[in-house]
Amino acid sequence: MRVLGIDPGLRNLGWGVIDVDGSRLAHVDNGICQSSGKNLARRLLSLHEQLSAVVTRYAPDTAAVEQTFVNKDGVATLKLGQARGIALLVPAQAGLEVGEYAPNTVKKTVVGVGHAQKGQVEHMVKMQLPGAEIAGPDAADALAVAICHAHHVRSQAAVIAAIRKVGT
Amino acid sequence: MRVLGIDPGLRNLGWGVIDVDGSRLAHVDNGICQSSGKNLARRLLSLHEQLSAVVTRYAPDTAAVEQTFVNKDGVATLKLGQARGIALLVPAQAGLEVGEYAPNTVKKTVVGVGHAQKGQVEHMVKMQLPGAEIAGPDAADALAVAICHAHHVRSQAAVIAAIRKVGT
Repeated sequence: MRVLGIDPGLRNLGWGVIDVDGSRLAHVDNGICQSSGKNLARRLLSLHEQLSAVVTRYAPDTAAVEQTFVNKDGVATLKLGQARGIALLVPAQAGLEVGEYAPNTVKKTVVGVGHAQKGQVEHMVKMQLPGAEIAGPDAADALAVAICHAHHVRSQAAVIAAIRKVGT
Repeated sequence: MRVLGIDPGLRNLGWGVIDVDGSRLAHVDNGICQSSGKNLARRLLSLHEQLSAVVTRYAPDTAAVEQTFVNKDGVATLKLGQARGIALLVPAQAGLEVGEYAPNTVKKTVVGVGHAQKGQVEHMVKMQLPGAEIAGPDAADALAVAICHAHHVRSQAAVIAAIRKVGT
């Protein structure tokens, strides 16, 4: 199973692709979609094009997007929301189910604690995906989201299999 | 010139299309794209498909999206931001320039005062677009955004023409 993780942002949108085979994880690629320019619509279009190219190139089976901290800075929340709309749309357009995970859930899955530092996340991502060269903190976060999604999908599958077994 | 106005929202996204010929405005159509369901990605995909169909059907020359009040409710701001991302993306994908106007600017242009009631906006939209049947308050707001954009584009064009005249 191939998993796409996305850490949304208007300026820097991180993405990471991993392959999952049972409990084995393998790094495929990661990167950052950047948008600049004053015109918001063009920036969102640029993010859409870059992220669509990632989906076309790596053909993931499922995707997940990090949920967003809602803080008191409404302007920042709105900006992030607009980028997050694109991050959710692109995999849905490819027919994928899109999981959503709170930052604390991602950290708990990848690092073991909910309030890990950013450096710790990158460190643990590198431990779990040996050999991965990581494009930056946003790409590391995106790979962490992908790892988190892989764990959750696997747990769900195990539960479904157990229920089926009981049923037979 | 054909103008598409959009009033973004996750549950109800209003749209309105008008034709502008000099100072004459004519109503073309208006409506509301509705999304429901628990899955945010699918809701955004549904909005994207409905709004893309509007752009394909009416082939506007330019578009405008209402700017968003940022309030203290971060969750609502984030939801609106995500819908707004789609509202800005769709006309940009069609190669259109996308104007943005604050709600007060729209009300000032259409009603004459910045703090008009919602009912007042709908009344003035009906006055300026005689015969228009309006699908609801969000569609009325979208038509108001289109009227506002038409006024601003016309003013800009007049300024550019005046500058050219002085230049010759």
